[in-house]
Amino acid sequence: MACRNALLEAKGDMEKAAQILKQRNLLRVESKAKRSTTQGLIEAYIHTGGRIGAMVEVNCETDFVARTDEFKALAYNLAMQVAAIPPQFISPEEIPEGADVEPQTACLLLQPYIKDLDKTVQDIIAETIAKVGENIRVSRFARFELGR
Amino acid sequence: MACRNALLEAKGDMEKAAQILKQRNLLRVESKAKRSTTQGLIEAYIHTGGRIGAMVEVNCETDFVARTDEFKALAYNLAMQVAAIPPQFISPEEIPEGADVEPQTACLLLQPYIKDLDKTVQDIIAETIAKVGENIRVSRFARFELGR
Repeated sequence: MACRNALLEAKGDMEKAAQILKQRNLLRVESKAKRSTTQGLIEAYIHTGGRIGAMVEVNCETDFVARTDEFKALAYNLAMQVAAIPPQFISPEEIPEGADVEPQTACLLLQPYIKDLDKTVQDIIAETIAKVGENIRVSRFARFELGR
Repeated sequence: MACRNALLEAKGDMEKAAQILKQRNLLRVESKAKRSTTQGLIEAYIHTGGRIGAMVEVNCETDFVARTDEFKALAYNLAMQVAAIPPQFISPEEIPEGADVEPQTACLLLQPYIKDLDKTVQDIIAETIAKVGENIRVSRFARFELGR
């Protein structure tokens, strides 16, 4: 229905319709950004051989959404992301003033998403927010690498 | 062979023989305590429902031992232990002077082992050391509980 409306509004122009849809999703995501997230999942990912491990806490608004496949997949993919590219912070707001870091590598949310490098981690979280209709937040992560 | 020798030495007294064996294992464990541990495993345990998760780094001396079933089981059980009884420290040496904590709860190594409350976590690590013949050390842990 949303697609049909966007196509009508774009007078059949597919590219324009996609743009309209993306903009709408963004607005929906932003409208949820202030909602409190007290439910969620702890998820872990151990890389083959057990030399690298990562654990994340991902929060949403209700236990119902926490138990959906979309949310579970997001939590798992985020744990895998942390194992693959070690972040120092979750978001750029956490970077201490004057710190010499590259935000696109140091901040989990700004990192390129390992399974689709054209997107950022923030993008795939926004996609899940649009799908499940709840605010989603990564509240913490831990990453262990053998002997480091 | 070790059992037979202990029995001979104890002149057939089973209880005394068990005592001798335990003492010998302890000596073997102590003789390994100074050996460096650079290999090992990162292991995680997520409690049912994803509300609690724990991750540990357990080290041994060689990659060969890290890949044994005994060592893997130890790492898994230690992650489960951390999820079940939240430790603050690994060993009593880490407790800051004057801190008001109960070492038997606060230190992972002194906690009663969740799968056999007659033993401590240190005991089951010592048992694995005796089995695999290498020094074993827990070097760090992380524990996440939803919303805490």
